[in-house]
Order: sequence, then C-alpha cells, then structure tokens
Amino acid sequence: METMIYLAPIVGVLALLFAFTLSNNIKKQDAGNQRMQEIASYIHEGAQAFLMAEYRILIIFVALLFFILGFALKSWSTACAFLLGALFSSAAGYFGMQVATKANVRTAGAAKESGMPKALSIAFSGGSVMGMCVTGLGLIGVSIVYLITKDTGVISGFGLGASSIALFARVGGGIYTKAADVGADLVGKVEAGIPEDDPRNPAVIADNVGDNVGDVAGMGADLFESYVGSLVSAITLGVIYFKEPGAVFPLALAAFGILASIAGTFFVKASKNADPGKALKAGTYGSSAVVLVLSLVLSKVFFGDMKAALAIISGLIVGLLIGIMTEYYTSGDYKPVQRIAAQSETGSATTIISGLSVGMRSTMLPLFFIAIGILCSYHFCGLYGIALSAVGMLSTAGITIAIDAYGPIADNAGGIAEMSGLEDSVRNITDKLDSVGNTTAAMGKGFAIGSAALTALALFVSYSEAVGLESIDILNPQVIIGLFLGGMLPFLFSAMTMDSVSKAANKMIEEVRRQFKTIPGIMEGKGKPDYSSCVEISTQAALKEMMLPGLMAVAAPLLCGIILGSSALGGLLAGALVTGVLMAIFMANSGGAWDNAKKYIEDGHHGGKGSPAHKAAVVGDTVGDPFKDTSGPSINILIKLMTIVAVVFTPLFL
Amino acid sequence: METMIYLAPIVGVLALLFAFTLSNNIKKQDAGNQRMQEIASYIHEGAQAFLMAEYRILIIFVALLFFILGFALKSWSTACAFLLGALFSSAAGYFGMQVATKANVRTAGAAKESGMPKALSIAFSGGSVMGMCVTGLGLIGVSIVYLITKDTGVISGFGLGASSIALFARVGGGIYTKAADVGADLVGKVEAGIPEDDPRNPAVIADNVGDNVGDVAGMGADLFESYVGSLVSAITLGVIYFKEPGAVFPLALAAFGILASIAGTFFVKASKNADPGKALKAGTYGSSAVVLVLSLVLSKVFFGDMKAALAIISGLIVGLLIGIMTEYYTSGDYKPVQRIAAQSETGSATTIISGLSVGMRSTMLPLFFIAIGILCSYHFCGLYGIALSAVGMLSTAGITIAIDAYGPIADNAGGIAEMSGLEDSVRNITDKLDSVGNTTAAMGKGFAIGSAALTALALFVSYSEAVGLESIDILNPQVIIGLFLGGMLPFLFSAMTMDSVSKAANKMIEEVRRQFKTIPGIMEGKGKPDYSSCVEISTQAALKEMMLPGLMAVAAPLLCGIILGSSALGGLLAGALVTGVLMAIFMANSGGAWDNAKKYIEDGHHGGKGSPAHKAAVVGDTVGDPFKDTSGPSINILIKLMTIVAVVFTPLFL
Repeated sequence: METMIYLAPIVGVLALLFAFTLSNNIKKQDAGNQRMQEIASYIHEGAQAFLMAEYRILIIFVALLFFILGFALKSWSTACAFLLGALFSSAAGYFGMQVATKANVRTAGAAKESGMPKALSIAFSGGSVMGMCVTGLGLIGVSIVYLITKDTGVISGFGLGASSIALFARVGGGIYTKAADVGADLVGKVEAGIPEDDPRNPAVIADNVGDNVGDVAGMGADLFESYVGSLVSAITLGVIYFKEPGAVFPLALAAFGILASIAGTFFVKASKNADPGKALKAGTYGSSAVVLVLSLVLSKVFFGDMKAALAIISGLIVGLLIGIMTEYYTSGDYKPVQRIAAQSETGSATTIISGLSVGMRSTMLPLFFIAIGILCSYHFCGLYGIALSAVGMLSTAGITIAIDAYGPIADNAGGIAEMSGLEDSVRNITDKLDSVGNTTAAMGKGFAIGSAALTALALFVSYSEAVGLESIDILNPQVIIGLFLGGMLPFLFSAMTMDSVSKAANKMIEEVRRQFKTIPGIMEGKGKPDYSSCVEISTQAALKEMMLPGLMAVAAPLLCGIILGSSALGGLLAGALVTGVLMAIFMANSGGAWDNAKKYIEDGHHGGKGSPAHKAAVVGDTVGDPFKDTSGPSINILIKLMTIVAVVFTPLFL
Repeated sequence: METMIYLAPIVGVLALLFAFTLSNNIKKQDAGNQRMQEIASYIHEGAQAFLMAEYRILIIFVALLFFILGFALKSWSTACAFLLGALFSSAAGYFGMQVATKANVRTAGAAKESGMPKALSIAFSGGSVMGMCVTGLGLIGVSIVYLITKDTGVISGFGLGASSIALFARVGGGIYTKAADVGADLVGKVEAGIPEDDPRNPAVIADNVGDNVGDVAGMGADLFESYVGSLVSAITLGVIYFKEPGAVFPLALAAFGILASIAGTFFVKASKNADPGKALKAGTYGSSAVVLVLSLVLSKVFFGDMKAALAIISGLIVGLLIGIMTEYYTSGDYKPVQRIAAQSETGSATTIISGLSVGMRSTMLPLFFIAIGILCSYHFCGLYGIALSAVGMLSTAGITIAIDAYGPIADNAGGIAEMSGLEDSVRNITDKLDSVGNTTAAMGKGFAIGSAALTALALFVSYSEAVGLESIDILNPQVIIGLFLGGMLPFLFSAMTMDSVSKAANKMIEEVRRQFKTIPGIMEGKGKPDYSSCVEISTQAALKEMMLPGLMAVAAPLLCGIILGSSALGGLLAGALVTGVLMAIFMANSGGAWDNAKKYIEDGHHGGKGSPAHKAAVVGDTVGDPFKDTSGPSINILIKLMTIVAVVFTPLFL
C-alpha cells in the first residue's frame, strides 16, 4: 500500500510526457499564412518578454525569502524545497504559455482550413498542456520532496514556493491584461470607433498578450498553488491522524486524478455541428466520474472503508455545484444577467447597482455548498476530511485547467483571424469557440475560488496543528482582533489592485492616444502602430504595481504572528479566509454578470449595440474588468499565501 | 455606591425634561409665512403617516415575538421587557421626529428673520430633542428593568425590543428616503431639468419626509439600540465579574454621560460669521472631555483604581478617531474625494471604480482603531472592559445624536426655503448649515458603525456567557461553517436592501413621470402636483420591502442555533460581525465620497455643474445613495439584532 507513493512521481512524469506529445502535435500543425505568423510572433514574444521580466524580479524576491527561510528558521531543507516549489511553478507557467502562444495561431489556421472540430481540438490540446504541466509538476514536486525528507514542514516550503510565484503571476498578470484591455477598448473602440482586435490599434497586441499572461499563466499558477496546497495540508494532517497511509493516500488519489484527467481529454471531441460547450463538459463530467469510482476503491484499500472516499466526493461535488451556480449568475441565459441588462435601460447607475447586487447575492449558495461540504467531509474523516475534500475538488484539476486555458487560446485565435483579415467564416468558428470559452472561464473562476477556500481552510487547520494550538477561541480578544484585521485585508488588497489597474490603464490610454495623433496614416492602415511600446507599458506597469500588494500578503501574517502571537494570527487567517472568499465570489460574479449583460444587449436585446442601454452596459463591463480579472482572482492567492506563510514560519510565532 | 443606580432613572427623567423644555422653546419660535407653514405641514403629516403605518405593522411583529418569548422561553417577564423596549424605542423615534418636523420650518424662519446663529440654534435644539429622548428613555428603561428584576436575561429582552424596532425603522426609513430621493432627482432634476426642492416636483415632499424618517427616526432608533445594547452587555458581564457594582457602574457612567451631553449642548453657540461646524465640534469635544474626567472619578469610587475608566476612555477615543477618519475619506477637503472627482473626467466607469476603491481602502484605519480599542479595554478590564468601551463610546450619544439629527433639519429648512420662494440670502444660510450637516452626517455614520461594532462584540461575549460556552473554537467545523454563513449574511442583506431601493425608486419614477404628463400646467407652476400620492408610494414600498430583510435578521440566528447548535451560532455571529462592520464602513464611505465628489465638482472643479465630469459624478452619487443611506446603515442593525436574538433565545440552543 505504502509503495503506491511511487505511483505519484511516475504518473507525474506520465503527465509531462503526455503534455510533451500534445505540444509536439500542436507544433506540427499548419501555422497559417505569413501575416498570421507575424502577428502570432508578436504575441508570443510579448508574452515571453513579460514572463522573463517578471521572473527577473521574482528571482530577487525568491532569493531573499530563501535566505530568510534558511537563516531565520535554520532549515535549509525547507529553503531548498521553497526554491523547488518556485521553480516548478515558474516552469509550469512557462511551458504552458509557450504552447498556448503556439496553439492560438494554429487554432485560427485549423478554423480556416479544416473547420470547427479540428480548431476545437487544437485549442483544447493547448489548454491540456497547461493542465498536465501544472498537475504533473505539482505531483512530482510534492511527492519527491516528501519521499526524500518525510518532513511535513519541508513540503510546506514547497507550497510556499508555489504560492509566492502564484501571487505575482496572478496580480501582475491581472494588472497587465486589464490595463491593455481597457486601454485598447477605451481609445480604440470608444474614441476612434474601430472594431475589437483591429490591427490599427497599437494596444491590440498587448491586449492579446494579456489574455495569455493573465488567463493562462496567472490562472495556471493560481491552480498550481491550490493543487500543491491541498496536497501539502492533506499530507500534514494525514501523517498526524493516520501515519504513513494518511500521507500516501492523497498522493495516490492525485495520481489517479491525473490519469482520469488524461482519460477525460479523450471525451472532448466535437463533430461538425455539435456544441463545443457540451464536448468540454463531457470531459469534466467524464473525469469526475472516473475519480469518483477510483476514490472508492482506493479508500477501501487504504483504510478498509469508504469514509475517505466520501470526503473526497464531497469536495468533488461542491466544486461542480459552485461551477453551476457561477454559470447561473453570470450567463446571459438566466435571470440575473437579464435583469442587469433590463436595468441598463435606465442608465449606468442602475446597471452598476443591479450588478453589485447580483454579485453580493451570488455569494449565498456557494457559501452554503462550501458549508455543507465541510460538514460532510468532517463527518466522514474529521479535519483530515476537510483537506481530502480539497484534494478531491482539485483531483480533476488537469482537465479543469485545460478547459480554462482553452478559453484565451480560442480568444487569441479570433484576434489573429481578425488582425490577419481572414474571411468571416473563420471568425465565425473562432467566435463560437470563444463564446464557449467565456462560460467555461466563469465556471473556472468559481472553481478556482472554491478550491482556494477549501485549500486555505485545510492549510489553516495544518497551521493550528503546526503551531500547537489546541483551539483558536473567538472569545480571546487576540483572536477577535485577528479576525477583524484579517477580514479587512481582502478589502484593502482589492482596493490596491483596482487602483493599480486604473493607473496602468491610464498610462496605456495616453500612449494609444499619442500614437493615433503622431503616427501618420495610422488610421488608414498605412502607418504601422508601435505595438511594442504598448507591450512595454503593460509589462512595466504590471511589474511595478504588483509589488505592494505582494509584499503585503507576505508581511501581514508575519507581522501579526510576531507582534500579536499565534492566536491572533489564527484569527487573522480565519478573518481573511471568510471575507476573502466572499469578496472573491462577489467581485468575480459581478464582473462576469456585467460582461455578459453587455453581450446579451449586443445580441439584440434592449435596443442592441449602440443603444443607450448598451452604453450603460459598457460602463458596467468596464467596472467589472478589474473586478473579475484582477482583484477577484488575486484574493484567491492572498488567502492561500497568507496561510502557507503562517504554516512555514510557525517557529517564529512560538 | 450601589445607591448610585438611582441616579440613572433620575438623570433619564432629567434628559426628558430638558427635551421637553427645548421642544417648547422651538414651538414658540416663528413658523414663517403661510406658504412655509403649508409646506411644513405636508412634510410633518407625511412623516407622521409613515411612522403610524410602520407602527401598525410593527405591532403585529412585536405581538408575535411577545408570545413566542412568553411561550417558547416561558419567561413572561422577558416578554414584557421586550414590549417595553419596543415601546420606548418607538416613543423616542416618535417624539424626536415630531420635534424635528417642527424645527425645520422654524429654522428656515429664523434664517429669514434673524440670521445664522439663531437658525443654527433652532436646528440644533431640534436635534437635541432626539438625542435626549434616545438617551433618556434608553437609560430609564434599562435601569428600571434592572432595578425591578435584577435579572440580566430580562434586560436583554428590553434590548431585543429596541433592536426589533431599530431594524424596521432603519431599513424601512432607508428605503423610503432613497426611493423618494432617486425618484425626485432622476425625473425632476435630470429629465425635467428643474432644480432640487422645486415645488413643481411631485416627489419633493416625499423627499423631505424621507430625510426625517430615514436620517432622524431611523438613525435615532439605530443609536437607541446601540445605547441600550451596550448597557445590557456591560451589565450582564459586570454582574458576572464584579457583582452588583459591575452592573451599577455602566448605568452611573451613562447618567454622567447624559449630564455631559446636556452641558455640551451649551458649547454649541455660533456668532454671526463663525463656522457652524466648529460650534458643533466644540459640543462633541466638550462633552467628551467632561465624560473623560467624570469616568476617572467614578472608576476610582467603584473599583478603587482607574482601570475601568481607561477602558471607557479607549472607547471614547476610538469613537472620535473613527469619526475623524470618516471625515477624511468622505470630505471634499481631502485627497480621496478629490481623486474620485478627478477620475470623473474619464467617465462614469472610472468614477465608480475609484469610489469603490476609496470605500474599501477606508476600512483599514477604523478596523485598526477598533482592534487597538479592544486590546486596550481588554487589557484594563478583561471582557467586561470591551463592553465598557462600548458604553464609553456611546456615553456622549446624547450630543452625537443631536448633531446627527441637526443635519436633516437644516436640510429640510433649505427645502422649505426653496419651495416657499424665500430670498437667496435665506437659502445661503440654510445651505451653509446644510453643508456642515453633510460632514457631520458622515461622521455620525462612522460613529454609528463603530458603536454597533463594539456593542455587537460586547453582546457576542454576553451570548457566550449566557449559553455557557467556555470557548468558541474556530477549529471546530461547526464554528467554521457558522463563520462562513454569518459572513455571507451582510452581503445577502445588502443585496436585498439595494434591490428594494431599486424597486421602490422605479415605482416613484413612474408616478412622477405620470404626473408631469397628466396634470395640466404643472411645469408652469399652475397645476398643483399630487404630493400625497408620492408620499403614499414611498410609504407602501418601504413597508413592503422591509419585511424580508427584517425577517431574515431574526430567523437566521434562530435557525442556525436550533439546527447547528450554539457553537455554530457563535461562529455565525462572529462572521456576520466581521464582514458586517467591513461592509458597513465600505458602503457608507463609498457613498459619502461619491456624494461629496459630486459636490466638489459642483463647486467649480473639473468643469463644474453640467460638465461631462459632473454627469459621471452624478452616476457615482446615484450608486452611492442606497450604499450610504440604506444598505450600509442597515447592516449596523443586522449585526446587533442577530446577536441580541441569540442572547435572548439562548435557552433554545442548549
């Protein structure tokens, strides 16, 4: 039974091999005509340049933390594990984005030459590479570190590495993508009146790069962190309650989850006129079903009963339910979004109010599901069960990430088609793929939040075990203070990231206006816009603006733990967890609902494109941009990172 | 020493006598010309009608809860105390508003005949009546119930009565005032282009009534609840830790606080050209200083040392600091509001984003102050100290409420001057008084939130004592679930109340449009608008819409306690407390900042009135209306009411 631990690195390597095969397959595809290749290379190089610039900054941060870990905690093995975690997370982001920026142009090419099924297959393969890299590297990392050291403190170091990279990737990527998006839209679409993805718009390349660095690399790093964090906490608690089998079980389950995800990718097949959305859902449900069955077998083998499996299945179901709720609140097919669209008729103020209200209301059911999930998993397996439910929710991360990353690839493909002036039929196919991507992106965000909540909770429990707290008593004023201050952090963090997007977007707006004014013939398509200066602006602004919120996330738990003690830190983590989950859901869903209310109006309701209602809806969408793509998702990282900082630096608070 | 308990009802009666004197004085003043008296009588009758209609509904609710308390808890004395609490709260609201709707027209009259100092004095006297009624009746009620029963369970019943009325008064009043305000503004100012408070606008009376039922009666009930709640928890914990003196001390302190407030009212004197804002601040700081000194003496007498006084002073200082921070974030004199005004130049989306960001950021320092206040007061006096700090913060409630209620009276006076066509010089004086009222209103909101936070926290501690919980452990999954669900409630509650305002405002908009269309000569000032139908619409909509959020606040803790148990309920209360305080500060300050950003632009910045920046700022202000006057303040009540429900119904959760 304990030998099953070797399954983990083996399956991890298998995942990487599968990713390698997919990637090779993609590269073999036709990359389209010269114009398409030229544009794709701009996007590829821009994304590359951003990642490299980001990594250059991260090296300093990582080195600093490495030495702090080594000297302050006197544990160089933890420091090395931290380094490895940071390295693996970066590698997953790097490979995933490399392939995504190859798959985008080939998706456009396939849409041009062979039609929808082939285009879907390439875009999804591109996403699958990210999914396999994240889960493969995550599982290899955790299992190898555990196999070598058998020390749960050291594997937490690996988690901290993953978290550190995730924070900067999510925050930086989120700022990058929205600065470019807002800049391109506000000056290009609104002021100059040229369509989306028009090659005359200087910010158009930066906008497409943003999809990759924000929605592919940022999202990947986010889920890498959740994936690793859930395993770390399950192993930590598993060792405490069930010795060795308790640690091996989650690793084995994760290995089976990867196999199920690989199997699931083969469910994603579309015939000529089928709905690509159904194909993607078939993949998710297919692999969930496989994990469900396998977890029952595994649980019986490890513990002689089904209890552990039931905890896992709780997590799996909660993940699916949150995804469904997210779809309900953010899709144009349902009442909430339609109500926002209707409110747009009375102007932008009512659009904003109704969107905020939808977002706040949408917290209710996910929180109920999370609560029921916690109750069930605890009922079956105690605190270990909570960690297992997080592992369960993330067991199919391989395919969930694949579907998430598919979205921006399809979006990019559409952009490339537009910029290369391909015929409308191509654009129709990419539009269809893209619109499915929008729905799956909203569901993916719900999944990211749900998994972050359970992971942070499981890590929180690990923290209390690590620091030796028998209880974290809310009647203790230290804990109360911690709760209040921790609850405040997501509000402060959201304000910071929203302001960052504003600042960065303002710079972009000025640059695009400047180019429209000073480059002769740019509006007639004769003068060549300077794409690279816009890419540079987004890059620099994102890197500069990610520093302060990033440092805050690391400094807050350290300061609280050192000054106010371990109980107050427990309160701080709990407070941040509660308001963080709520704010993340609220902001992501408000943003998603505004976005789709605008699209719903563009589909011809309430006067359609250009009507007063549409103008009001555009205001909602603009407010929603930083909500759903920067502040909301960044909070996921905040709550996980703060908790893992607390776990790793435990000796300082004793 | 214990005989000092008799001081409490005596001073309470004194406060009422002072209120009576002030009220008689006001009534003796010149009520202006016939037109002014006519308009004032519309406002008076509208406010009266709303309160009566509200009380008719509340009677059913109160009767229901009375029998539930009697039969389910088998404590008819608690039920009777509950009845008394509801009665006293209603009486305070009724008298306060009676006088406020007399003082408004006399303030306008004084501005016309004698100038600013006299007008200030009348408006402030009107506010003082509310302040004295709230604190006087509150202190009489709590002390008499305690004297008769000596049972802390029974005085909690009195608190529950106060809370129940407060909820409906705040929520109903908040919906009323914003429905009327939005309706009057959107159709009158924006569509028809007539100025604010123009008598041709059919919703103008409802708008002025709204100021009274929302900002006078609603606010008064809110602070009545806090005042009573802080005393109830201090007495409950005082008896546990210090026996009889522990219960008498807060009552004696409150009595001295009323005396200090009465003294403080005499500081509020303005000379001809002086700043009325300074006069009001002199009153607040003056009475705070008096309480500070008296608390030191009292603490020495009761406990032989200064510790209890230090806990009280902590609360007093935190209250003042939160007020100052609120002013910083919401006044046009400082950077945050000016930045929102600057962002209005790039359109309404950036106005909204920057306003949301200011509101979220503004949570930081108040939470720090609250945390430090908790630490200090606990350090000096343990859990009892936390309750004492709430009592300390509220000890000067008499004058704080007076200043709060002064605002809408001055606002009403301006409206009456405008509607009666008084000369510009009169309007100048009332405008000056009104603008000071806006700043003090923002500070008053900060104070209401801060006191609600400390009161709810103190009640929360009382709950744990009542239910016999030695600890409320966040590592217990019941508590975690409670935290998550409780944290969600303020989000859900805010969504509900925002939607209610939208619905009510929509009805008002339709009615005003209908009148403009169908009443001949209305725009030329010849046809008489039907004010009463607008008043009726606001009344009915507010009463209908307050039911659901109201029931939720009572049902949520009951259901949680009965189904999930007392630990989960502890978590629920803590979760709601944390996110409630944050959401209340966020929403109140965002709303206040938008409001003043608009006024800042109207003062001639960024293009002034009518500029594109002004239009964007108006959108911000409209979004801010339900934020700052409905949802935000209602959350104060939510967190207090849920906690006192838990305290009173404790036997059901054992």
